[in-house]
Amino acid sequence: MLQSVSLSQYDLVYNAFSFTIAVMGAATAFLFLNRSQVAPVYRTAISISGLVTFIAMYHYIRIAASWTESFIVKSGQVTPSGVLFNDAYRYVDWLLTVPLLLIELILVMKLSRSETVAKATKLGTLAALMVIMGYPGEISTDSGTRWLWWSLSMIPFLVIVYDLFFGLKNSIDSQPESARGLVSSARYVTVVSWLFYPIVFTLPMLGFAGGEATTAVQVGYTIADIVSKAGFGILIYMIAVRKSESEAEHAQSDVVGLSPKPTAV
Amino acid sequence: MLQSVSLSQYDLVYNAFSFTIAVMGAATAFLFLNRSQVAPVYRTAISISGLVTFIAMYHYIRIAASWTESFIVKSGQVTPSGVLFNDAYRYVDWLLTVPLLLIELILVMKLSRSETVAKATKLGTLAALMVIMGYPGEISTDSGTRWLWWSLSMIPFLVIVYDLFFGLKNSIDSQPESARGLVSSARYVTVVSWLFYPIVFTLPMLGFAGGEATTAVQVGYTIADIVSKAGFGILIYMIAVRKSESEAEHAQSDVVGLSPKPTAV
Repeated sequence: MLQSVSLSQYDLVYNAFSFTIAVMGAATAFLFLNRSQVAPVYRTAISISGLVTFIAMYHYIRIAASWTESFIVKSGQVTPSGVLFNDAYRYVDWLLTVPLLLIELILVMKLSRSETVAKATKLGTLAALMVIMGYPGEISTDSGTRWLWWSLSMIPFLVIVYDLFFGLKNSIDSQPESARGLVSSARYVTVVSWLFYPIVFTLPMLGFAGGEATTAVQVGYTIADIVSKAGFGILIYMIAVRKSESEAEHAQSDVVGLSPKPTAV
Repeated sequence: MLQSVSLSQYDLVYNAFSFTIAVMGAATAFLFLNRSQVAPVYRTAISISGLVTFIAMYHYIRIAASWTESFIVKSGQVTPSGVLFNDAYRYVDWLLTVPLLLIELILVMKLSRSETVAKATKLGTLAALMVIMGYPGEISTDSGTRWLWWSLSMIPFLVIVYDLFFGLKNSIDSQPESARGLVSSARYVTVVSWLFYPIVFTLPMLGFAGGEATTAVQVGYTIADIVSKAGFGILIYMIAVRKSESEAEHAQSDVVGLSPKPTAV
């Protein structure tokens, strides 16, 4: 499905991939290093945010290598090498990272254990289903087949987005004042960055063709990945920091003069 | 023993390997980072769980590279390159990881020191024996030879599975209430994921041939490895978290009014 691209398109896509490797690597290091800055109860959420960017970094290294192998660049001319670009890297990446992204958001909300397990199971399963149903469409060049799988994949997509956007709305009131704005942002960032994917997917069905379609799809998915993984991970970190601070203040005011301050909340 | 595969079989196996590298890497990072979330007595079990996925990640990087070298993919055609696929990576991996897997399970049960040493020695030795006896069968193309080594390898296999399934059953009652369900799951996950290996081994002897046999064996072992190493590692982690929590509560209720609350158990 990879068509010939111009030299500037080839470079643009390659540089976007390389940029993403750097961003994901940096986000991973930041999240792993600063994990201890948040209260213990939020550390799993931060670890998982770092895992998401770590897994994405790995796949972008593979994606960039596959891109290089797919073309022969000589004297300013780009010709397909005959080795196919491996679209599957993105899908195996999403199969792992999308459920994890949902889990980091659920964990930072600090619901009860049973609610956490129920929500993570439901949304994680739907996310996996969504990714799996997208793949047969992605590797097809037939517009009808692409639309069919796109539509099927949109069913779990809409359920997840609806659940996050409206389901989380109710739990915002139970968040501490200082974190409320950020939790609300997280909802919007999720919905807006997620909407990128089904739109990018349809570009080849909407008149984009040849090198233009390839470039638009690759750069589009890359931007969406940066926002929804690295950007979102940092947002989750900031929420966890605010919540840790507010809970520490609370705990302290509860025990003033009564007993030694608990060290972990 | 590696036979020619179709392009889609080649891709499926390659993508399964790449997926596994990402899973094992992510599981390793998670276990190493979250080691401090459990009580000190369980940290060795968590470290060892992370070692298992780390060793598996290393071998899957090698396995994926060996797979790529074994074939020449050109213009949608896959032909064997003449370089043999290295089956031994799996067996050296198992030689290290299977005894370690058993040890992580024994450690999280928190038996007495002498029981721990006795059980780890017995099961670890049997596991090594099981892996060593499987290898001559794996590299043979003769059905009789394969069945012979399969049967020999099944003797330690059955002893281990019997010991885990029924031996651990008795110690479940001594586990805290909140961890009992997970310990019971760990027994089932062990038995079911382990059963995959001898079944996958016999596929080429049961009529699967050519590219189909190669694909089924490689994908089958890969699924079994993901469940029995990464999945099992996370399960061990969850058991350790629950047990740490329940023991901390216990310790706290023991010392009420006597001394300041201990910060770590």
